[in-house]
Amino acid sequence: MKKFMNDPLKFVDEFIEGILYAHPDKLKSINGDLKCLVRADETKDKVGIVTGGGSGHLPLFLGYVGKGLLDGVAVGNVFASPSAQQMLDVTKEVNKGKGVLYLYGNYGGDVMNFTLASEMAEMEDIETKHVLGADDVSSSPKGEESRRRGVAGIFYAYKIAGACAEEGADLEEVARLAQEAVDNTRTIGVALSPCIIPEVGKPTFTIGEDEMEIGMGIHGERGIRRSKLEPADDVTGAMLDKIFEDFEYKKGDEVSVLINGLGATPLEELYIIYRKVYKTLEEKGIKVYKPYVGEFATSMEMTGFSISILKLNEKLKGYLDVPCETPFFKQL
Amino acid sequence: MKKFMNDPLKFVDEFIEGILYAHPDKLKSINGDLKCLVRADETKDKVGIVTGGGSGHLPLFLGYVGKGLLDGVAVGNVFASPSAQQMLDVTKEVNKGKGVLYLYGNYGGDVMNFTLASEMAEMEDIETKHVLGADDVSSSPKGEESRRRGVAGIFYAYKIAGACAEEGADLEEVARLAQEAVDNTRTIGVALSPCIIPEVGKPTFTIGEDEMEIGMGIHGERGIRRSKLEPADDVTGAMLDKIFEDFEYKKGDEVSVLINGLGATPLEELYIIYRKVYKTLEEKGIKVYKPYVGEFATSMEMTGFSISILKLNEKLKGYLDVPCETPFFKQL
Repeated sequence: MKKFMNDPLKFVDEFIEGILYAHPDKLKSINGDLKCLVRADETKDKVGIVTGGGSGHLPLFLGYVGKGLLDGVAVGNVFASPSAQQMLDVTKEVNKGKGVLYLYGNYGGDVMNFTLASEMAEMEDIETKHVLGADDVSSSPKGEESRRRGVAGIFYAYKIAGACAEEGADLEEVARLAQEAVDNTRTIGVALSPCIIPEVGKPTFTIGEDEMEIGMGIHGERGIRRSKLEPADDVTGAMLDKIFEDFEYKKGDEVSVLINGLGATPLEELYIIYRKVYKTLEEKGIKVYKPYVGEFATSMEMTGFSISILKLNEKLKGYLDVPCETPFFKQL
Repeated sequence: MKKFMNDPLKFVDEFIEGILYAHPDKLKSINGDLKCLVRADETKDKVGIVTGGGSGHLPLFLGYVGKGLLDGVAVGNVFASPSAQQMLDVTKEVNKGKGVLYLYGNYGGDVMNFTLASEMAEMEDIETKHVLGADDVSSSPKGEESRRRGVAGIFYAYKIAGACAEEGADLEEVARLAQEAVDNTRTIGVALSPCIIPEVGKPTFTIGEDEMEIGMGIHGERGIRRSKLEPADDVTGAMLDKIFEDFEYKKGDEVSVLINGLGATPLEELYIIYRKVYKTLEEKGIKVYKPYVGEFATSMEMTGFSISILKLNEKLKGYLDVPCETPFFKQL
């Protein structure tokens, strides 16, 4: 197991400590619990947005807590949900009386704990709403969108709901916009190599030296096609086809594209992927607005990438444009 | 060879095409040569700063071309110098009559070509000065600092010279500040696994499944110690000792720290490294100002990281603080 770490059982606490040493003006932990983090800046009277999920996906989830984005996060161990109590603690801290949106990925443990947290919050007179990231087209067929896993495309829901909340919208409106972003986002991923969970010490799956798996999830969940690795343009084309089968784009549509590296894939290669995505969309008469290329939701040292496409309208575009700032993501 | 690419010989052109499709408002190529890139925004009457070097290190080098940083870059093939003619073309494009600083890493091919380019520039009445990144303490002993390789620490020279030039300083002053940043920066790296040059198709070096090599360069140049992989705190401590042997820090000093991932090392692990660096410096009474943690100078999919420390003074601190913006690096 070739990882830079100390005690595997302290992996999460230690990286969070490092983050808090590096960014004390941006993030703070509450109740002496390193896994309950909120914005360090004073937020005005606004709807709070809380996320949460397992570790191992930086900058997801805690990296999106900051100005113009989210207000707090409950951090779990690697690939494990945080507890309902941690979610509640964060909720109470970020609640400014206008309610709290729970915006997180569609995974069993997270759904269960956020549901429990919202029941506990209700007893403290804090109104909450849930919106779930469910953008992975390969995790459940068309018609069963709500059963899909949430992956990198949740970035768009964070960005849009965050801008909307910062502007002063009420809970219903922030939740509506977050849901609209989710409904308009489609993602598909591909993996070439696994990662190692520190506490476990062995790869999450095995795959041949010359193989790829399209549709694999960010925890190594089984994909939809395993085959020999193909040229980048062919892989990208096959992945785009899956998205096009799932969502109807028309000539003249505007979209944002997110090419997300899963951890070990060089930025050079992500831009080779973007090149093919851009050219393919252009051929279809679809205009790309504000593309994002980089690491937005990783699986530690997994090799692979995902493509997310957000169909835009004027309102989504406006919120996408709003500046934001966290230690991990800045938009001017 | 598990890489997302098409024709290996088109690797560099294709990723640059992707970058230009993604960021047309920020970067443009000149003379129809994808490997000659300049800022797309109109720059005022200022000293130009040009860099250049081999590909495979994104965001280095082209990622630092933009507002508050550099004006142009000549891009080579993977791990190979661009040509003197490309450097000259970029020089002519960014020259606004106040001269041009060549700021690049200390590698034979780059030194030779930039020297040739400056002779050609002189014939066109463009004054140039050279400042070389030479921050890698493990590449040459103390007393022979000018023979050292340039690695991630060149980021600090870019940041400081870029802010100084943007402010309107003359060529002599910009070069002086760049040199001061280089003189005050020390870097050391460690690698766990190699990368593959697309055109070559095999790993740049071999290393055991349980081994690390401290001091290895970003092209796989031999380091100073190969041993079994140790816990993160021990590796980090040993690396810091090498820097402390090389540069004198006193209690009360202020430094900036850059923890740079070489490509495949998870951000989580980089923050575990930062945690140890911060604690060690704190114990010595050295204050960390504005740390940077992420990927700043990679070696494609190499696993490893480097630690750079910049000793600050009021002037360097002021320039470090100035906002800047490129598609790859933003500071507010």
